[in-house]
Amino acid sequence: MHSQKRKLTYHVATTLDGFIAREDDSFDCFSNVGDHVTDYLTMLRAYGAVVMGRRTYEIGLKFNVTDPYPFLDTYVVSRSLKEAPNPRVNLISGDVVGAVRALKAQEGKDIYLAGGGDLATQLLTAGLVDEVLIKLNPLVLGTGIPLVTRLPSHVPLELLSTKVYRTGVLLLQYAVNP
Amino acid sequence: MHSQKRKLTYHVATTLDGFIAREDDSFDCFSNVGDHVTDYLTMLRAYGAVVMGRRTYEIGLKFNVTDPYPFLDTYVVSRSLKEAPNPRVNLISGDVVGAVRALKAQEGKDIYLAGGGDLATQLLTAGLVDEVLIKLNPLVLGTGIPLVTRLPSHVPLELLSTKVYRTGVLLLQYAVNP
Repeated sequence: MHSQKRKLTYHVATTLDGFIAREDDSFDCFSNVGDHVTDYLTMLRAYGAVVMGRRTYEIGLKFNVTDPYPFLDTYVVSRSLKEAPNPRVNLISGDVVGAVRALKAQEGKDIYLAGGGDLATQLLTAGLVDEVLIKLNPLVLGTGIPLVTRLPSHVPLELLSTKVYRTGVLLLQYAVNP
Repeated sequence: MHSQKRKLTYHVATTLDGFIAREDDSFDCFSNVGDHVTDYLTMLRAYGAVVMGRRTYEIGLKFNVTDPYPFLDTYVVSRSLKEAPNPRVNLISGDVVGAVRALKAQEGKDIYLAGGGDLATQLLTAGLVDEVLIKLNPLVLGTGIPLVTRLPSHVPLELLSTKVYRTGVLLLQYAVNP
């Protein structure tokens, strides 16, 4: 029997000018009430695993959250962390691309790429990101943590769906074309 | 009789990661065929004047286009240009904010702010931009000319309308809240 490969989805909130957080990693400028939050929590349940960079993981750590997605297999990419502060958290420290490729080859539900921009860029460049799911917030920041960082060349996307929320947040689903 | 103030609309194509052009000012990565182009040409007719930065103006100059919008009163903001290469082009070299404020106070149709990001940031910061109209193209660039540059604080927007084109381009209309 042929099984469908697990999709890797870069699922993140951005500003209209393409930032996923302020320069200090804060993101309180993003709308955190309304139907788009309910939808987000529902969508999280469709994933089986989450992969994130160390800085993204540390956003929760600041609030003593060592296991931000207790219902997902959790992977944190870091060269500096020697030990995960929670036994449920798996560290990826060496060959990130190889580790994520292996994770995608396993059986399971889709994989949530929660950020940050550097990790997403690395995985986009390696051709491992299948979808980009953007919660486009109605504001411009002018500066911050970018959605992606320097790419070898531009990455064309295919718009799959859009949803408009009353808050002015847009949910934009794109396929990354191979 | 009370007349409606002329709106200033920052109307520009962006990538999903918030760039209005590549670092070398090229923008051939943007979709230039399809209904969104027809709509753009129609929308241009609703403006009475266009304001742009010198680098934006020079994109046309490279192709010997000295009067890119012959049906609009044309203003180019520049400290370096001493003389406009076309008599229809008015140079704004000193108090940009004052000049644009004066232009908005005149009778006439709405004003098209065609870029670039630095000029838009200056006018956003001065509270002179009324709307942001984005042609969101389905791609990420990773690096380029940003939609806006460093702002004193984030600028909240209000989503007014959306339109989805078959090319995957989205037209997003936002009001800049005072």
